[in-house]
Amino acid sequence: MSLFSEPSAQAWLARFGATPDFEIAAVDRLLNHRSVRRYTEEPIPDSVLATLVAAGQAAATSSNLQSWSVISVDDPARRAEIAALCSNQKQVVTAARFLVFVADLHRIEQFTLAEGLPTDGLETVEMYTVAVVDAALAAERVVCAAEALGYGICYIGAMRNKPHQVAELLGLPSRTFAVFGLCLGRPAENANAAIKPRLLQDGVWFKESYGVNEEAIEEYNARYAEFAAEQKIPMDGTWSQKSAQRAQPAGLSGREALAEFLHSQGLAKK
Amino acid sequence: MSLFSEPSAQAWLARFGATPDFEIAAVDRLLNHRSVRRYTEEPIPDSVLATLVAAGQAAATSSNLQSWSVISVDDPARRAEIAALCSNQKQVVTAARFLVFVADLHRIEQFTLAEGLPTDGLETVEMYTVAVVDAALAAERVVCAAEALGYGICYIGAMRNKPHQVAELLGLPSRTFAVFGLCLGRPAENANAAIKPRLLQDGVWFKESYGVNEEAIEEYNARYAEFAAEQKIPMDGTWSQKSAQRAQPAGLSGREALAEFLHSQGLAKK
Repeated sequence: MSLFSEPSAQAWLARFGATPDFEIAAVDRLLNHRSVRRYTEEPIPDSVLATLVAAGQAAATSSNLQSWSVISVDDPARRAEIAALCSNQKQVVTAARFLVFVADLHRIEQFTLAEGLPTDGLETVEMYTVAVVDAALAAERVVCAAEALGYGICYIGAMRNKPHQVAELLGLPSRTFAVFGLCLGRPAENANAAIKPRLLQDGVWFKESYGVNEEAIEEYNARYAEFAAEQKIPMDGTWSQKSAQRAQPAGLSGREALAEFLHSQGLAKK
Repeated sequence: MSLFSEPSAQAWLARFGATPDFEIAAVDRLLNHRSVRRYTEEPIPDSVLATLVAAGQAAATSSNLQSWSVISVDDPARRAEIAALCSNQKQVVTAARFLVFVADLHRIEQFTLAEGLPTDGLETVEMYTVAVVDAALAAERVVCAAEALGYGICYIGAMRNKPHQVAELLGLPSRTFAVFGLCLGRPAENANAAIKPRLLQDGVWFKESYGVNEEAIEEYNARYAEFAAEQKIPMDGTWSQKSAQRAQPAGLSGREALAEFLHSQGLAKK
């Protein structure tokens, strides 16, 4: 059914560079995630897509506000336009299905206006956060369902590179924002999608209060360098040095202008 | 293994009020989510928690930045302090495990300072969004893994009610923020956790571009009113009227001050 169904213990090894000293609970599929950017021609039927969206709707949503929407884009011309706005990532065009996850306070705005009430609570960073989290929780459950059915996925954060143009293309009204895209398809034999190593658990998981674990960073820099060499991922410095570039305007691919776009949509203003 | 393992078709019925006219793909567990607020005394062993965190680490993360952390809080006194900061939600105290998901740009800040580079890119709403999405994707995969193992969960958005106090209690450094909490435990027999109805799919899932579906809202208001009556959920007006309250300062439980807190952490400033 899928190229990617390594048992949990093997997935753990690929992720953390060693097997654990305890028995891993059997959640094989959930440990097997990797981004897949090459797909077969196999379509994803509407019924399967509906099941995936239902999984997304099964995710928790803050106070049952359901402050997210999803837009499926099938039209090849529109896909090409979106790809052009997303650093020309070709999987946006080649995926069997492409979804855009929208942080959506527009429905609530309509309810509020219908009650004759002021809408400025929707301008808070709090409500922006509610909607972004709602969209992300729904998306990740869609992804878990898709992977359970043997599909591969790739998130497209580059949907935020040109937010004004994306909003125009998708007809996004006030109080909405395309948080990311999602490519879905059956993984191609040559998908070359390895499990990506991550920081050891004690680098991200702290007990009782926040911690800093410099050894975990050093260990990861070394392990990630090996992985990058194997996978022929070009590295200019270590993982931590590369990550530091994202704190620089040049590393943000134009996304430093996101606030201005969000404000124009009536989001995250205060 | 779990109280909650209805077949997909039955979960669909509970969610949308009717069965679909196509065969649902078998993703039973993923369609069966409901919030669980009452748990048995059964502990969650460290090995299981490690597997759950590993599932979270398997989730996609923007550019592999891994800009999230998780803090497990086991100490009963600290749990009680957190509950007091979260509208006294008792499941924060009674859950077998309690996790706090942190949007975490602190590690990247450290890498950046080590390179002698400016850190102001981390103050953008873009990087705030990256970290919040990273935390949410990880959390939802933790949840899917927990539910696959028969545990029940409840997200605690009220972690944002008193962000300054939460940050002090958890020792959260610059560029970090507790997005939400997560209660985990084996569901009690009397958990009374029904699948919550959601908007029909064509109310949240649009084709090619954004849409508005007023009929779906009306249909949902009616169906949700029935559910609320069955479940004895107090309703003051319809679901859409209730949702409109969240656009009002009084409905925000103090969270309208979130921006000020985030700015003090060096987040979402521009």
